[in-house]
Amino acid sequence: MAQQEVQNGGAEKVAEAVAFTAVKPQLLVEAPKASDAVQFYKAAFGAEEAGRTLHSKRKAEQELPLILSAELKLAGSTILVSDVADDSAAPAKSAGSGGVVLCLETQDVDAAVAKAVSAGAVAEGEIVEGDGACCGGRVGKVKDPYGYVWLICSAAKKCAEVEA
Amino acid sequence: MAQQEVQNGGAEKVAEAVAFTAVKPQLLVEAPKASDAVQFYKAAFGAEEAGRTLHSKRKAEQELPLILSAELKLAGSTILVSDVADDSAAPAKSAGSGGVVLCLETQDVDAAVAKAVSAGAVAEGEIVEGDGACCGGRVGKVKDPYGYVWLICSAAKKCAEVEA
Repeated sequence: MAQQEVQNGGAEKVAEAVAFTAVKPQLLVEAPKASDAVQFYKAAFGAEEAGRTLHSKRKAEQELPLILSAELKLAGSTILVSDVADDSAAPAKSAGSGGVVLCLETQDVDAAVAKAVSAGAVAEGEIVEGDGACCGGRVGKVKDPYGYVWLICSAAKKCAEVEA
Repeated sequence: MAQQEVQNGGAEKVAEAVAFTAVKPQLLVEAPKASDAVQFYKAAFGAEEAGRTLHSKRKAEQELPLILSAELKLAGSTILVSDVADDSAAPAKSAGSGGVVLCLETQDVDAAVAKAVSAGAVAEGEIVEGDGACCGGRVGKVKDPYGYVWLICSAAKKCAEVEA
């Protein structure tokens, strides 16, 4: 019974093999606390920051630029930490899955989104050009049948190292 | 300013270097849909199941045993999928972070929990003996200042391969 829904919907029509190069949990933090959160994960778990990208647009009243994505290395994996503000244009906004978004990197975003949708996920918005949130190039967003949001994106640009 | 809280609290008194061997996002799914969710992640993303552990206690009226933890390989990372029922005794219950819990494996659970707490996390409950949710041995739970729940546990027992 577990396969009742996943084998219909024309899965055969899209690429069978979409290769993913990384999956990275992205923790969304109420702006502007992402910088503090990065410090916390360093202190609490020994995470190491590999780099961060900042929001290119900042309001005049903001003291510090918001973090689009900070990349942390922890136990051989990568975790992303991002500021999310009400006016954020980040694709992760309104994630709906309680603050954690799962970023899946692939060289074929369109095929990956199509395959996920054919398996039962719901596309949220169009595939767009990313704004550098450790997602270079194209970014698609899907919500799976269990409420989790996946960002499907081109492999990350190298995050710039920025002094905190 | 980002370090205002993380350097007090006696962090010096606990082990400075706690080594973590893995971090695994655990996706909590309303029981008994975890089996369907595993099928979905296989179909949508090409995930491969490395094994699963089942709840040892089942109600007579349950048709299928609930999944304590299914371990999926995806893009070189590991993701866990778990049934969560109202009567579940799983440590992940009442996660409070929207369904995603971050499992951190270490050989020194007590020191890791102490260090996280000294950095500002809040321990939730005592450190207990795990029930096999891909967490062998001891399991501690902490909530970080940003609302995310981390399960700190001994390295996983090998999950038994079970026919779905």
